[in-house]
Amino acid sequence: MKTFIGVDLGGTNVRAAKVDEQGQLLQVVKEATEIDQGVDHVIQKIISMIESIDGYQECEGIGMGVPGPVDTKNGKMMLASFLPGFEGYPLVKHFRDHFQMPVYMDNDVNVACMGEAMLGAGKNHDSVYYVTLSTGVGGALVIDKRVVSGAHGFAGEIGNVIIDRNREDISHLNVGAVENEASGTAITRKGKELFGGNRINHAGDVFDLAREKNPQAISLCEAATYDLAQLFSIIAHICDPEVFVLGGGLMKGKDVFLDQLIEQFKTLVHEGMRAVEFKEAQLEEPGIVGAAMLVMAYAGGN
Amino acid sequence: MKTFIGVDLGGTNVRAAKVDEQGQLLQVVKEATEIDQGVDHVIQKIISMIESIDGYQECEGIGMGVPGPVDTKNGKMMLASFLPGFEGYPLVKHFRDHFQMPVYMDNDVNVACMGEAMLGAGKNHDSVYYVTLSTGVGGALVIDKRVVSGAHGFAGEIGNVIIDRNREDISHLNVGAVENEASGTAITRKGKELFGGNRINHAGDVFDLAREKNPQAISLCEAATYDLAQLFSIIAHICDPEVFVLGGGLMKGKDVFLDQLIEQFKTLVHEGMRAVEFKEAQLEEPGIVGAAMLVMAYAGGN
Repeated sequence: MKTFIGVDLGGTNVRAAKVDEQGQLLQVVKEATEIDQGVDHVIQKIISMIESIDGYQECEGIGMGVPGPVDTKNGKMMLASFLPGFEGYPLVKHFRDHFQMPVYMDNDVNVACMGEAMLGAGKNHDSVYYVTLSTGVGGALVIDKRVVSGAHGFAGEIGNVIIDRNREDISHLNVGAVENEASGTAITRKGKELFGGNRINHAGDVFDLAREKNPQAISLCEAATYDLAQLFSIIAHICDPEVFVLGGGLMKGKDVFLDQLIEQFKTLVHEGMRAVEFKEAQLEEPGIVGAAMLVMAYAGGN
Repeated sequence: MKTFIGVDLGGTNVRAAKVDEQGQLLQVVKEATEIDQGVDHVIQKIISMIESIDGYQECEGIGMGVPGPVDTKNGKMMLASFLPGFEGYPLVKHFRDHFQMPVYMDNDVNVACMGEAMLGAGKNHDSVYYVTLSTGVGGALVIDKRVVSGAHGFAGEIGNVIIDRNREDISHLNVGAVENEASGTAITRKGKELFGGNRINHAGDVFDLAREKNPQAISLCEAATYDLAQLFSIIAHICDPEVFVLGGGLMKGKDVFLDQLIEQFKTLVHEGMRAVEFKEAQLEEPGIVGAAMLVMAYAGGN
């Protein structure tokens, strides 16, 4: 069976693993990223981690997920807020030269989508739109097992999609951007405004109040749910995926909002589009598995 | 040089042509559709038209554009408001059985996009989003010379994308759908409200008033332009195309709105996305050329 190296490079930790075609993690290594010690230090660390994996030379190639938009043509990060110094660095070329094997890189949301599309909830579907509802809101489109990264690496930056222009200006994002209105951060912010910072530490506290039938919490959740339903409607009219796969920490509150979201979505699309499926993400490690799957998806055609 | 048959089946007329790889129309035949005489009559008419083309047997295949969403997997129209009786009819199978050659079908906007992407303004670009600004607002995404039709044939039905939920309910589309607010029909409606039905017959009359510095007309055009800028921003965050190609009758007023649209778009996207190009559609016959190009794009891989 073919094997692949997946690397999940985050601002805090970096993990590398050998993964098989079914997405099984055969061996995993993990270290602190230590970005404060510079780009060269981090790169050397990742190389050593990969070389510590048994039989890494026999793997088909290396796939990497990184936090931020990626210029996939040139194998560089476009923005690297969490990895200062990596912006514009020719990371893919560096690894290709060192390992003499195929190397692919994409942003971590695209990579997780890839994992879910190929081996998780999107398996057996030709077109998958993955949406992560977390601190932020991100997305990725996978068509025929290939992620659509976009010409500038910004495809799936759906947190900045405007769902209602008549809102307050609260971040660098667009006024009324869905991430400002319905992300975990947004639900927490609105919860604090209503119930105070002592009572609300994260979105889960708002969901708990809604479960206890607190009318203000219910109303807050309903508004955020409608904002998300509009986002899904917009995506569907542009891409019309076969399935939406939903991941991210906010899904812990799915009992509060998911059924309602799907019902409202149906009122906001053409009749023939109501058959789109909504599925929950399934993989325990979509980031690292998806990174490995970049190789499976692209190595054949490149 | 390889040749292809392109068929543009509309509610009023049907045209068939032999097209070469450069998009040259080598021979064109045209007849009234006569949909009132039934589906069988129309199909027999198209078959006769194709068979009247010199050397049609040597063509690589047949591509068809039709007005409405298409189930491209099964080769059927999903909705056929302009072609009653064609909904669900196995048109592609019928033509494949008859002609014994590859046959592809997609909706007319996708097909025009295909033509523009492969041979027109999108030539030499890997990802193209085509937007037609006309009576309605439609779109299509072409990635690596393949149109993304969507799982239910609704990809690119961007007329129903909500750009401002706080508008009036004026059609079967979503409240605040861009087609209700910034299409040719919408600009005409708003113009009639301001200036009366005698003065405004179509959007061009509103553009003329704006050119004459009429403040109300300018204000109307500015609002519609902003609505469109928001639509382009939304599409960019979802797909991040390399180039937007703009076609449709409204482009006759491009001197009134296009520069402003691009400027406003730039204020509504992340900095790295501002490099996306806006180009005007170039082909004189995108519908029929694009239909023929379906064969060039798909026959190889199917």
